Amino acid sequence: MSSTKDIDALIDMMAKLPGLGPRSARRAVLHLIRKRALLLTPLADMMQTVAATARECLNCGNIGTADICDICQSNKRQNGELCVVEDVADLWAMERSGVFKGRYHVLGGTLNALDSVGPEDLRIPRIRDRVEAEDVKEVILALNATVDGQTTAHYIADMLEGQVQLSSLAQGVPIGGELDYLDDGTITAAMRARKSVS
Amino acid sequence: MSSTKDIDALIDMMAKLPGLGPRSARRAVLHLIRKRALLLTPLADMMQTVAATARECLNCGNIGTADICDICQSNKRQNGELCVVEDVADLWAMERSGVFKGRYHVLGGTLNALDSVGPEDLRIPRIRDRVEAEDVKEVILALNATVDGQTTAHYIADMLEGQVQLSSLAQGVPIGGELDYLDDGTITAAMRARKSVS
Ligand SMILES: [Zn+2]
Ligand SMILES: [Zn+2]
Repeated sequence: MSSTKDIDALIDMMAKLPGLGPRSARRAVLHLIRKRALLLTPLADMMQTVAATARECLNCGNIGTADICDICQSNKRQNGELCVVEDVADLWAMERSGVFKGRYHVLGGTLNALDSVGPEDLRIPRIRDRVEAEDVKEVILALNATVDGQTTAHYIADMLEGQVQLSSLAQGVPIGGELDYLDDGTITAAMRARKSVS
Repeated sequence: MSSTKDIDALIDMMAKLPGLGPRSARRAVLHLIRKRALLLTPLADMMQTVAATARECLNCGNIGTADICDICQSNKRQNGELCVVEDVADLWAMERSGVFKGRYHVLGGTLNALDSVGPEDLRIPRIRDRVEAEDVKEVILALNATVDGQTTAHYIADMLEGQVQLSSLAQGVPIGGELDYLDDGTITAAMRARKSVS
């Protein structure tokens, strides 16, 4: 493909990243090689640093550089609210919105009988310990609106029944969303949860 | 955004690569961190290797790991044909097709009066030296079908007039191309270059 094994190997590695393909990997690698002192070396250095320091928070499953992440270490974030998400990417999305001031619990996936993913394979049993240890009053189940996500939410709700207040994100039409582009499930959910305008 | 400065910095660096944006950079970095021993460390190592070894071929402008690239070093590729391309990505695309068996000359851009890009800013003067030194019989101008690409092709054609055979890639409907999706210029070119079917 290109003239050397190492450059080809680098393109192959980049092409396997989510969101990239062979064509964008080739463009990215060419761009990095052209500005190798300015871009490629610093990027490689930062990857080494992150590879050496990144780890999962032992308490919540967030990714950070300490055994206990910044959010779990901050007393300000212990406000009695615990938001359960499937993935670190969901936690980051919530943090970008800035709407949630409590702590998180990252499951690391969803229950799935076909793939034999049970509660012990995720961080589900730990939620009960945290509810007690961190004086949680409300658990917000912010799982994806997929079959597996909702199965998992029901399982956790059953587990915590009577011990804590449970809630989930509202479903409906996204801000700026056009009905014509929404799937039937979203429209159905939005219709069922309709509010009176007066 | 995420919980640490280094991870945020890595996401920012990745997000600036062509073809990636903030969202795909976040997904890629999370993926790399999850498999840091398997993916992130080897990727960083390969980037360091490429940053230390990659360079432009002094003869043709191709990117490789030696002062003279594999293609320029191979006597088999000196067949009297020289293919002039704008960019290393174009050279790679030609090599993937496997159709061309000669050598390349990478200009590193196109002439552009507005941005004051003149022949000396590209590798244009060198073409004449190579025609003589490498016994070139035919120069194939494989520049992009843009205004700047065609201006540059005309300039090189004028420069080499009478010294060597000149050709350019055929223009027309791409294989599998549907007329409805093609721009007017391509249809016009394909119509003007139409061939009799008998
Ligand atoms: Zn944490
Ligand atoms: Zn070369």
